[in-house]
Amino acid sequence: MNPEGMANGSRLVDDLAFRTESKILLAVIDGLGDLPIDDLDGRTPLEAAATPNLDALARLSSLGQHVPVARGITPGSGPAHLALFGYDPLEHCVGRGVLSALGVGFDLHPGDLAARINFCTVDGDGTVTDRRAGRISTETCRELVDELSGIEIDGIELHIMPVRDHRACVVFRGDGLSDSLTDTDPGLVGRKPLQAVAGNQGAERTAAFVREFSAKAARVLEEKSPANQILLRGFALYCPWQTMEDRFGLRAAAVALYPMYRGVASLVGMDVIAPSQDDLQGEAIAVRNSISDGYTFTFMHHKPADSAGEDGDCRAKIAAIEEFDTIVPALIKAGPDVLCITGDHSTPCSMKLHSWHPVPLLLYGGPQRTGCSAVFSERSALSGSTGTIRAVELMAILMASAGKLAKYGA
Amino acid sequence: MNPEGMANGSRLVDDLAFRTESKILLAVIDGLGDLPIDDLDGRTPLEAAATPNLDALARLSSLGQHVPVARGITPGSGPAHLALFGYDPLEHCVGRGVLSALGVGFDLHPGDLAARINFCTVDGDGTVTDRRAGRISTETCRELVDELSGIEIDGIELHIMPVRDHRACVVFRGDGLSDSLTDTDPGLVGRKPLQAVAGNQGAERTAAFVREFSAKAARVLEEKSPANQILLRGFALYCPWQTMEDRFGLRAAAVALYPMYRGVASLVGMDVIAPSQDDLQGEAIAVRNSISDGYTFTFMHHKPADSAGEDGDCRAKIAAIEEFDTIVPALIKAGPDVLCITGDHSTPCSMKLHSWHPVPLLLYGGPQRTGCSAVFSERSALSGSTGTIRAVELMAILMASAGKLAKYGA
Repeated sequence: MNPEGMANGSRLVDDLAFRTESKILLAVIDGLGDLPIDDLDGRTPLEAAATPNLDALARLSSLGQHVPVARGITPGSGPAHLALFGYDPLEHCVGRGVLSALGVGFDLHPGDLAARINFCTVDGDGTVTDRRAGRISTETCRELVDELSGIEIDGIELHIMPVRDHRACVVFRGDGLSDSLTDTDPGLVGRKPLQAVAGNQGAERTAAFVREFSAKAARVLEEKSPANQILLRGFALYCPWQTMEDRFGLRAAAVALYPMYRGVASLVGMDVIAPSQDDLQGEAIAVRNSISDGYTFTFMHHKPADSAGEDGDCRAKIAAIEEFDTIVPALIKAGPDVLCITGDHSTPCSMKLHSWHPVPLLLYGGPQRTGCSAVFSERSALSGSTGTIRAVELMAILMASAGKLAKYGA
Repeated sequence: MNPEGMANGSRLVDDLAFRTESKILLAVIDGLGDLPIDDLDGRTPLEAAATPNLDALARLSSLGQHVPVARGITPGSGPAHLALFGYDPLEHCVGRGVLSALGVGFDLHPGDLAARINFCTVDGDGTVTDRRAGRISTETCRELVDELSGIEIDGIELHIMPVRDHRACVVFRGDGLSDSLTDTDPGLVGRKPLQAVAGNQGAERTAAFVREFSAKAARVLEEKSPANQILLRGFALYCPWQTMEDRFGLRAAAVALYPMYRGVASLVGMDVIAPSQDDLQGEAIAVRNSISDGYTFTFMHHKPADSAGEDGDCRAKIAAIEEFDTIVPALIKAGPDVLCITGDHSTPCSMKLHSWHPVPLLLYGGPQRTGCSAVFSERSALSGSTGTIRAVELMAILMASAGKLAKYGA
């Protein structure tokens, strides 16, 4: 046994995991956690929502709360999901460029350098006037990407893919690339796009490629409107990770409508299952198929609660949670042996941002210390029998609950 | 971003911290935590105290409890405070000698060796009969220090400072000093003072200096009574630390009446603000000045609860807590954006000692999950929405609550 591994609880799970046919379903309501809201008489959206199915389930479950990354740390979606999948984001750093490329299904090779592209608008002076080019349509984005795809740079291979709206991504393929580069996005309007700067000598050659790409892209786009320039962010080298199959012996599948979450799931080796219809009902059907097809771990992702939180719209967040509640019977009927319902992080409506606050979680199925909670809410989760855990500890509890972890020591 | 730093939650805060004008106030009621006391009908002093202001605040706050260093570990004041300031005492060891010297405002240089002095009484045989020399007055201590200051030792520079009562401290300044030395304090009466022994060859020269100093001090004091000898403890080399400004971008100030706490605060780069009057009212005024002067982090320290706990006097501890309660409105009026009230450790009256028990904490201001607690007490803190944290995690929560931490990852 690897002594380094032993010092780390998450590696211990790898050592003790064994394969069984039992099925785990992890349902993530994005941005679920919230804070008390005056307009809701001091309740959170989860507390104010009518959730008969979740509440009935809570009585048969163990509740608790998780801290996504560390106390006080507000996570992005990438680190927050990786933690739920059992990959400590403090050990496994991953850049947004890689997540974007994986999210659109691009087949990254080890050593590829990926970055996010934002189409933007600059004035005659070259100053950025809109960092999102008026949020052009995905169709326009696709057309512009086609034009950029004609760019050639000696010494590397370029791949450019549309993502959504004004967002695209680029992959530089070649030998000896580095991701020690600064963004070209100035982060604010009223400034000019920046030059990519190498963080060390080994990155100078890559920085030159990136500057050449930026300059050529500017020439391709200069007559366009409103998208007449690009900004690059989140440079990240791709190095393949150990998969959930390698680590936990799980055949894992992801059901998600948004590319970003598919990307994170791909990174840890999940198969992406595209729902036949682009809504929560479609996702529920995809979950049923995933479980009946023999996947032993299914991740499903429900986005609208987070979007509502970021909009500060607590009624929309309530509606998103209530919509999720309606499919809970279908999720149970799909037959997982263990079902966990939680969020990836909190997105309080009052903040309109992700936050660091703990996230309620519910564990149903397998041997659980039930009977401690009557409803599913932030407050009831506080006194739930699972207590407060780090998100990265969840996978061990799911594996144990599903009977997939051996005893440690004699 | 430093990859090593990433593996460590407390370093993550350093990477994500940014400067804002928002103000954090950390009020420490020393030794706050306690255990149920029969004479108080099974309540703790905090539960038995009349604390209308703290209780009203609790309803608008998030409560929780912190474990000062690690489960079961009883901390000294130094490590306990360092943890609250975001410096993991398990990584940042600091000797008591350094804390003493900083506490009396001595300007330590890197490489200085500091130690604590206790004046003691020895009999004609040289055996220690009182390790505190009858707790001589600070005035007497000062006179004796003046006499000791005449001692000269070839090769080093000596600085001796009175602290309080029978306590003083000494700083050896010179090249190549080591703190790998044993104490000369035998720890018990009925024994003779020990010789300082080097822990390794590199410390032999330093040990010789210390033995010479002890011998010369004994000769200076031999005709005195009751303080006719010294005992040396807590040898510690001074090496400057990263300041709270460096790590968190905080302009930090300390309001404390006792030298020890000023010393710990100085060690992490806080400016020490001396209250204009030597009591809690004076401290409250100093806090107001600190905040209005633009300090973005103010630490204030209230000592009497700990002293009462060490005396086993639960009525005095109740009085100390009630006295603190009266200044809570002034602290709020001083205008911190985030206010945390907690203790550095527990000092249960029944034990008359510091202890390892978790310490209640209250977080007010910024986005908090409020509405979970009705009073401020050990019991209500247990079910507070912050849950149980390690003390060293508090700084991240304070920084996040004050809007001084960036999101981690995309």
